[in-house]
Amino acid sequence: MALPLEGITVLEFSQYLAGPYAGLRLADLGARVIKIERPRVGDACRQLAIKHLFVDGDSLLFHTINRNKESYAANLKDPEDLAKVKALVKHADVITHNFRPGVMDKIGLDYQTVRQLNPTIVYGEVSGYGKTGPWVNKPGQDLLAQSVSGLAWLSGNDSPDPTPFGFAIADMICGTHLAQALLAALVRRQQQGIGALVEVSLLESILDFQFEGITTYLNDGEQLPKRSQVAGAHTLLEAPYGVYQTADGFLAIAMTDLGQLLELLECNVTGEQLSQPYEQRDAIKAAIQRRLVARSTDHWLTTLEAADIWCSDVYTYATLMKQKAYQQLDMDLTVSRPNGASVTTTRCPIQLNGDKLRSDVAAPALGNANEQLASEGLLDD
Amino acid sequence: MALPLEGITVLEFSQYLAGPYAGLRLADLGARVIKIERPRVGDACRQLAIKHLFVDGDSLLFHTINRNKESYAANLKDPEDLAKVKALVKHADVITHNFRPGVMDKIGLDYQTVRQLNPTIVYGEVSGYGKTGPWVNKPGQDLLAQSVSGLAWLSGNDSPDPTPFGFAIADMICGTHLAQALLAALVRRQQQGIGALVEVSLLESILDFQFEGITTYLNDGEQLPKRSQVAGAHTLLEAPYGVYQTADGFLAIAMTDLGQLLELLECNVTGEQLSQPYEQRDAIKAAIQRRLVARSTDHWLTTLEAADIWCSDVYTYATLMKQKAYQQLDMDLTVSRPNGASVTTTRCPIQLNGDKLRSDVAAPALGNANEQLASEGLLDD
Repeated sequence: MALPLEGITVLEFSQYLAGPYAGLRLADLGARVIKIERPRVGDACRQLAIKHLFVDGDSLLFHTINRNKESYAANLKDPEDLAKVKALVKHADVITHNFRPGVMDKIGLDYQTVRQLNPTIVYGEVSGYGKTGPWVNKPGQDLLAQSVSGLAWLSGNDSPDPTPFGFAIADMICGTHLAQALLAALVRRQQQGIGALVEVSLLESILDFQFEGITTYLNDGEQLPKRSQVAGAHTLLEAPYGVYQTADGFLAIAMTDLGQLLELLECNVTGEQLSQPYEQRDAIKAAIQRRLVARSTDHWLTTLEAADIWCSDVYTYATLMKQKAYQQLDMDLTVSRPNGASVTTTRCPIQLNGDKLRSDVAAPALGNANEQLASEGLLDD
Repeated sequence: MALPLEGITVLEFSQYLAGPYAGLRLADLGARVIKIERPRVGDACRQLAIKHLFVDGDSLLFHTINRNKESYAANLKDPEDLAKVKALVKHADVITHNFRPGVMDKIGLDYQTVRQLNPTIVYGEVSGYGKTGPWVNKPGQDLLAQSVSGLAWLSGNDSPDPTPFGFAIADMICGTHLAQALLAALVRRQQQGIGALVEVSLLESILDFQFEGITTYLNDGEQLPKRSQVAGAHTLLEAPYGVYQTADGFLAIAMTDLGQLLELLECNVTGEQLSQPYEQRDAIKAAIQRRLVARSTDHWLTTLEAADIWCSDVYTYATLMKQKAYQQLDMDLTVSRPNGASVTTTRCPIQLNGDKLRSDVAAPALGNANEQLASEGLLDD
């Protein structure tokens, strides 16, 4: 199967997560993605280990984010190496980087310089908070971006304490927006033969993902989002929406006919409460919780699904992976290096013409493409 | 400024959030996005109000998700209307829908039929859990997808209770993947003149976003993610990473030199603890918490930022919007209908050639483009 981005070459100067996540998706979709890395050290993510997990000298995290890519090791401060990188730039379609503002200018690989070398380049920049303004030097880091964005007041039950999201959501979202921007610019380049500079930031991306909540705030007298006392799930949604405790576990209930649900649960609330499912959600949800905790999750699933109530068990990775539905998705993907080192991770979430995209190429050893790129003549001016 | 997707026409049969969020981004990037909606009722999201907030007859939510689009009202069960839609399909570049498996086949607008009408169509489908398998008829709904994905065990401090993310994260992520897939297919179409079927699902997308955690689980003896007892933020990261209480608020601290931080805080932990910042994170974070709660957030920001420790205040929407850095981002965007009804929401997070993308076109009134499309001859076979 010809993948959509075959023939597109991406130079990834980006490190850590946001930029490389965009690169991973472009690679999954068929692009040739070459990481440009410092000799000896490489992408700092190679040493950023979670739980000391390393595979073949690189952190498991690096393997996860950078499978299906190549690596070119070059010292951008060395004129000879830089000349080779500039030759590579002339052959590339896309560049991404997440250096702090000013760094690429000093190296001589900023957009204005690069477009002299390659007028139709699509050049993507990732920053924390944009390239100007009082936060331009604030660390462009996921938890800090989450923390300033208002996001920490949306999850969990109401309390005075903030609850950040439990993974690097700002990085991930920003990476998806970068990929969108690069792809849109490639569409235009093919139609009109012009390149583009596209810029994304952790903060703009995480604000965009809260557009429902922020728009509600701006049009509703600037009332802050209010978390439920009970079964919290989405600050803006009315009862019964939430995750409840049962006798032996948990049950998620989505938007549904509240009257029908209360009848099925033999649960009494006042007429006033029933007519105000947002304002009175704490009382209604507390009443639902009192009923649900009396019986098992399976009992409620059987009862409620039969009545077409939208509900679900709440799985861990362990219980999810035991489900036939998960196994049929075939999400697990084992990737290997030429020396046999391998990692099991997850595949691209996009399916194309009914096929799952399942490259088995692992993350590159540092500089694994140096010889190959030379032999292809891509390092010659 | 010529936007990247000018000249691309998207027919959006999608309703609610995931598909329409992809459409919003394509519209922001310059595509003409036409919602195909049922007469009189339209996208069900028009009546899905949060806090009873309506503007000009449509929910604020609908306005948020569907700004910058047009609407064509047509009854797909009426042969005359369907013929016009099929004519429109012949003129389109992209179609998206999120009907349950089988619905578009019955109407005669499934991919195999549509490609007879328009061989280079890029056709995007959104489902909850894929188009086969035991969950094919499970409601494709955000909270249920979150709940089965393992996501609910990542946020907040450790407790027996799950914590779903506080907005429709599965829908949003799936929408970004849909946009990526459609754009990649458009790149290929322009190079090779072929169309594509692309498919995404809430579950595959929300699993992809957890690829760090799932890969760690799969390569670390299937140990479930463990939330911190104190200052929880990311299940996989070591001390001091987290959000802490101070004397008058909160302080987020990202990855940093732990020894230096402890010295700055005059905080004692044992050598054994210091050498095991992941395994001993609860004890270390508790010690940090005890120090931080003694002084104000401003005090700690001044002290720690001077030492280049990565830290931040934790804002609500109200405190964020008072920051100069936020105001300079110019994220707020006011959009208006021809009758003057207007909504303030957020702009596209992508910047192009240094410009912010700021269309001021509001969400369409139902069927607002019916006459226009007829006059352009797009409804004629």
